[in-house]
Amino acid sequence: GSDLLAQERARATFDVKKLTLALYGSKELERLNRILKILENDPVFDKSNIYYMGRNELFEHALKKDKRLAQLIKKHKWNVEEIQIADLFLDLPGPFGLHRGMFIPTIFGQGSEEQKKKFLIPALKYEIIGCYAQTELGHGSNVQGLETSATYIPETDEFEIHSPHLTASKWWIGGLGRTANHAIVMALLKSNGKDFGPHPFIIQIRDMETHQPLSGITIGDIGPKFGYNSTDNGFMLFDHVRIPRSNMLSKFSQIKQGTGEYIRPPNDKLSYGTMVFVRAMIVTGVRVALARAATIAIRYSAVRRQFVDKDEPKKLKDGRIVETCVLDYTMQQYRLFPVIAQAYACYYTSKAMVDSYMNYMKQSSGGDFSSLADLHASSSGLKSLTTSMAVDSIEDCRRACGGHGYSSFSGFVTFYQNYLPNTTWEGDNYILTHQTVRYLLKTFREVVSNKNPEAYSHSNTSPTITYILQFLNNPNQTCTATTPSDFKNHEVQLRAFGHRSAYLIANAVDQIDNHKKSWNSMLIEVNRISRAHCQYLMARDFITALQKRHQQDEDERLRVLHDNPALIEVMTSVCNLFVLNTMEKELGEFLECGYLTSSQAKLIRFQVYDLLKEIRPNAVNLVDAFYVPEFMLQSALGRYDGKVYETMFDWASKEPLNEITLDINPNSEVLFRNKNGKARL
Amino acid sequence: GSDLLAQERARATFDVKKLTLALYGSKELERLNRILKILENDPVFDKSNIYYMGRNELFEHALKKDKRLAQLIKKHKWNVEEIQIADLFLDLPGPFGLHRGMFIPTIFGQGSEEQKKKFLIPALKYEIIGCYAQTELGHGSNVQGLETSATYIPETDEFEIHSPHLTASKWWIGGLGRTANHAIVMALLKSNGKDFGPHPFIIQIRDMETHQPLSGITIGDIGPKFGYNSTDNGFMLFDHVRIPRSNMLSKFSQIKQGTGEYIRPPNDKLSYGTMVFVRAMIVTGVRVALARAATIAIRYSAVRRQFVDKDEPKKLKDGRIVETCVLDYTMQQYRLFPVIAQAYACYYTSKAMVDSYMNYMKQSSGGDFSSLADLHASSSGLKSLTTSMAVDSIEDCRRACGGHGYSSFSGFVTFYQNYLPNTTWEGDNYILTHQTVRYLLKTFREVVSNKNPEAYSHSNTSPTITYILQFLNNPNQTCTATTPSDFKNHEVQLRAFGHRSAYLIANAVDQIDNHKKSWNSMLIEVNRISRAHCQYLMARDFITALQKRHQQDEDERLRVLHDNPALIEVMTSVCNLFVLNTMEKELGEFLECGYLTSSQAKLIRFQVYDLLKEIRPNAVNLVDAFYVPEFMLQSALGRYDGKVYETMFDWASKEPLNEITLDINPNSEVLFRNKNGKARL
Ligand SMILES: Cc1cc2nc3c(=O)[nH]c(=O)nc-3n(C[C@H](O)[C@H](O)[C@H](O)COP(=O)(O)OP(=O)(O)OC[C@H]3O[C@@H](n4cnc5c(N)ncnc54)[C@H](O)[C@@H]3O)c2cc1C
Ligand SMILES: Cc1cc2nc3c(=O)[nH]c(=O)nc-3n(C[C@H](O)[C@H](O)[C@H](O)COP(=O)(O)OP(=O)(O)OC[C@H]3O[C@@H](n4cnc5c(N)ncnc54)[C@H](O)[C@@H]3O)c2cc1C
Repeated sequence: GSDLLAQERARATFDVKKLTLALYGSKELERLNRILKILENDPVFDKSNIYYMGRNELFEHALKKDKRLAQLIKKHKWNVEEIQIADLFLDLPGPFGLHRGMFIPTIFGQGSEEQKKKFLIPALKYEIIGCYAQTELGHGSNVQGLETSATYIPETDEFEIHSPHLTASKWWIGGLGRTANHAIVMALLKSNGKDFGPHPFIIQIRDMETHQPLSGITIGDIGPKFGYNSTDNGFMLFDHVRIPRSNMLSKFSQIKQGTGEYIRPPNDKLSYGTMVFVRAMIVTGVRVALARAATIAIRYSAVRRQFVDKDEPKKLKDGRIVETCVLDYTMQQYRLFPVIAQAYACYYTSKAMVDSYMNYMKQSSGGDFSSLADLHASSSGLKSLTTSMAVDSIEDCRRACGGHGYSSFSGFVTFYQNYLPNTTWEGDNYILTHQTVRYLLKTFREVVSNKNPEAYSHSNTSPTITYILQFLNNPNQTCTATTPSDFKNHEVQLRAFGHRSAYLIANAVDQIDNHKKSWNSMLIEVNRISRAHCQYLMARDFITALQKRHQQDEDERLRVLHDNPALIEVMTSVCNLFVLNTMEKELGEFLECGYLTSSQAKLIRFQVYDLLKEIRPNAVNLVDAFYVPEFMLQSALGRYDGKVYETMFDWASKEPLNEITLDINPNSEVLFRNKNGKARL
Repeated sequence: GSDLLAQERARATFDVKKLTLALYGSKELERLNRILKILENDPVFDKSNIYYMGRNELFEHALKKDKRLAQLIKKHKWNVEEIQIADLFLDLPGPFGLHRGMFIPTIFGQGSEEQKKKFLIPALKYEIIGCYAQTELGHGSNVQGLETSATYIPETDEFEIHSPHLTASKWWIGGLGRTANHAIVMALLKSNGKDFGPHPFIIQIRDMETHQPLSGITIGDIGPKFGYNSTDNGFMLFDHVRIPRSNMLSKFSQIKQGTGEYIRPPNDKLSYGTMVFVRAMIVTGVRVALARAATIAIRYSAVRRQFVDKDEPKKLKDGRIVETCVLDYTMQQYRLFPVIAQAYACYYTSKAMVDSYMNYMKQSSGGDFSSLADLHASSSGLKSLTTSMAVDSIEDCRRACGGHGYSSFSGFVTFYQNYLPNTTWEGDNYILTHQTVRYLLKTFREVVSNKNPEAYSHSNTSPTITYILQFLNNPNQTCTATTPSDFKNHEVQLRAFGHRSAYLIANAVDQIDNHKKSWNSMLIEVNRISRAHCQYLMARDFITALQKRHQQDEDERLRVLHDNPALIEVMTSVCNLFVLNTMEKELGEFLECGYLTSSQAKLIRFQVYDLLKEIRPNAVNLVDAFYVPEFMLQSALGRYDGKVYETMFDWASKEPLNEITLDINPNSEVLFRNKNGKARL
């Protein structure tokens, strides 16, 4: 394998290290390397036995890992971003994950100063460990429908927390099952006979000494799952449990002592801003997941040989015919290269999301919230689109590795299993699109009725408004391309995506406003509109990054990219592949709205096939540039050095089952016996 | 949950029991029930702890199960089909699986009479246990590329079995790791310095007393996998191991004693016939998998309520507004109803495959092999299309269950994990399409050059030739539909599928023959053609079953269907949904070939949405009719009685991790402690 990968690397048309630099920047790269070194050299984080562990063993290992990580955080004074990097590399969801990921941030964001003193400080020192308990057995997506109640008792100035039905049991709560001694609990706030909807409470749930659940509280682990078995997702029921009034997180809303009067929260713009940021982080995570999957599949495909290609047989120098490496089969390229392109596209999309968020934060501190609605809507749709894409692509990459992709040693198995819930949590991917499309329809109606014309003169008119305006100016416009390479024109590409999205929006508005269609009857269209809009955004973000602009000088990463023509060249191929492969997959919609003709459809396919050829020599180099460390890959197939088969063999020989000798006689009750033939008891 | 499902069941427009009878027939139904009863009542087959088991425990359980099954087979004298039913219901791939599934059938099909006496009889009595060792670490799909060699040694009249490299190690072999004491080994037959390619040898690999590998043979389990962890897939290396000449399976080819002369096999039509049958069985398996997935998701969606639908809020009799069950959301219907339709479509496709195979067997015994090529090509493509579809649909159903779909208790997790390799084994789903399309292109060329005109006058002209002829008669024909309901016309539907497939074939032939395109450069098209052809076949098989014909009187199942107008009515809706949803997904191709216009595309969508409404009242009844037993489902979400939440809670409380108490202090080395606070050692 090593020589094959060396040959691939010799074919690079660009400097791989430069591209890595253009992705991360020198400061971030230094940080990644620094943290990686610490983790790799720590025996507690040794991953060599991870694939053989059963649930208990795995959970025990994850606890050990999380304890050690807590020590390192203290020792190295790691900040939030550094902890995130460590978490990413360690790649093992553990019992303290939600403590760091949700418990601490929620107190930080929604606690009063007093509450921070009381809970945040000990939480940061790991003196208390918390979790975030929102979802219930009967309710997830519809937070308004939660059943756990927190009733204010003026007599004692307390809340009574209660689970009225079995379905009110908190469920799925990460770190709750065996670990947390505190929880943020979302419960319906009730006072003076009124219901004010779900609010967050901080509740001690286990004894600090014995670690047993406190009286009135029933807790347990919810059992085995598709993945995430190294985390103790838990359930929890309350039986009239009393907590002090001061345990309601009270930065935004409160209950007044004695009177039980409810004090309303200010507007919710802040929490929307946070959601945008969380989603930008998820899209960054998509990029890493895609890069990781592509790295394994591309490297293995360069090493794996299967069949002699009869038309163009591969020959060694001595003339001997050898089998063709599977990366040379066009179908394999067609399955894998788009995943590389998706990873790069997500990189620029998440970057654009973070940049927009930063911009918004600046504007909002000056009182300007105008960009929030667009940002929030787009980020919902992008989370939905990209995480679904990631899950599909990881599985495509796994399957492209044939039988060996099914082995845990491929590095795909726990990776896929743990990634999967991204499609469900932080908003179910279907329900999320509702928010996106409600905003798009509203915007369309506003633009049509021109209620708010001054908005369009802004220099930073939202992209949505831009493409809606273009559509309204000429709803019957069609694509101008006449040759395959016309489709490499970025303006042609964006026009097509914008037109399709606007067409779908216009149609939905018509159905609802003029044909009185119900929202429910439009949900299938809603999903298509959100996808169309977000594919437009992804295309636009990638294209924008490749266009030289002034402000890029400020950003080291863009500067490196634009200072190296070889990088721009290869990234342009990758961008075109992303855009045109997406168009090809959605061809039905581009044709149905009349924007493309069937002969143009053929031109796109030609161009895609051409791009596969263009990218082939750089395939391995493009995944090398992602710089996914071996420590994270844990893959026999995706090794940098290509020693696939040696590693498969080495790891198989460590399988614990190999210690066992069977008694296979169907009439014998003995199953496992010792080597001397005796039954093992 | 129970009341909601009762309401659903009250809405049926047809007799569920009748539909079940129309699927299985009374004899088969009796057999299913008889076997199910035996299994359900046997404590060895108790599944209540299955989701909590680690690898060793699971493997031990599977061995116990397989031993008990062997006893029952003997006791009840079960035949091959009855064993298959038991295997299906037990739903736990075990260490004897390949013994029954491959070892015995291979000796039966390829062994001489003497070899059968020596190996088949003891194998049937489980005195020896075998496996099927073809795949190697370095080779799977390309069987010609195997490296294990079997060299004839005339001096001793033996073969020497040898693995020349690490990559020659047998790999993935089910039941080899810890169980089998015999193996069918595919090895390159070498004699007199010539290489005759891969041939099957039967080899004893473990000592019958100690169960240790024989001298010169290295064996082990290949380690953890995505699923199938209850089976010991193994590796095996040979170091110059000698076996008698008589151990080469010699029904078809042999080496002559002393001279080492090779005796060629007769034609390979027999083995092709067997492949057709195996694939028909896989498609039958797809039907079961889809039925199972749809059953869980549909029942759960009828019980799960989430959000109040503002336009059409659900009200109880007392006027109270309650949340809407998620099955009422059109998007949920759009995700799930097509899976029901796919399951029924696969039912009729696998039935047609089995019928054609039986027909062929009759013809071939009279010397007529003319239908084999078409059968073989179609069955390759259908295996590929339907197993990929099944994996996608199982996952779609799982995700449609929201967070709870991720719990093992959903019944999706091990089910999906064990089903997954169907896309890879018995022919990788991409490589399989090569065979299909080679045949289609050849047929097209023949029809065009009319080399073989008498073939078309046959009463049973192959469907492929029929649609190719239709296309050639009018390559520019277009669809005649002008209203949504025109698309319910089966003739209109079939014409569209046939035209699209023929168009793609014609285009590929042109590229290869006139533009000298290489096979490799056509692989992406190859995949599209195979899909198009097989979707045509699936549509045709479903439609044919719904059309009244004379011969149906012979088939109880078709007779029941056609004697009940209510069944025909609902099956017609299901068939239309299958066909039109497939068209909708492939809209790009139908538009690209110019057969459909963009306004027709819209009509199809309308019609699909209408069909969802048509099917809604029967959704639960259509999955009930599949008759998937609880014993197989093992699902808290898919229970017939709808007691979802009670079961989730009950099963969670049995999680073994709940026995453990943690020490969460990051500075303490103790991880798990006893309830009294002491470290557990
Ligand atoms: C591994 C994992 C870890 C988790 N960790 C936590 C945690 O730490 N804390 C916590 O509070 N929660 C946690 N969760 C819960 C998670 O947030 C919820 O599962 C998620 O929000 C989905 O909600 P649900 O399960 O209720 O799905 P549902 O809302 O019940 O969805 C079921 C189906 O109905 C559909 N549907 C629902 N409403 C509509 C509608 N209006 N229109 C159309 N379709 C609809 C959905 O698309 C879906 O297909 C976790 C979940 C998982 C899987
Ligand atoms: C759970 C499990 C159980 C198994 N049990 C057994 C068993 O009992 N006995 C046994 O002998 N085997 C067994 N196998 C092995 C199985 O049959 C092989 O894995 C399968 O045939 C695929 O071969 P491969 O792994 O070599 O894939 P490869 O051929 O290496 O495929 C790798 C990739 O290359 C692509 N590719 C390869 N050639 C071409 C081409 N010409 N054109 C385009 N693309 C190409 C493929 O599509 C795939 O994406 C098992 C496998 C699994 C996963």
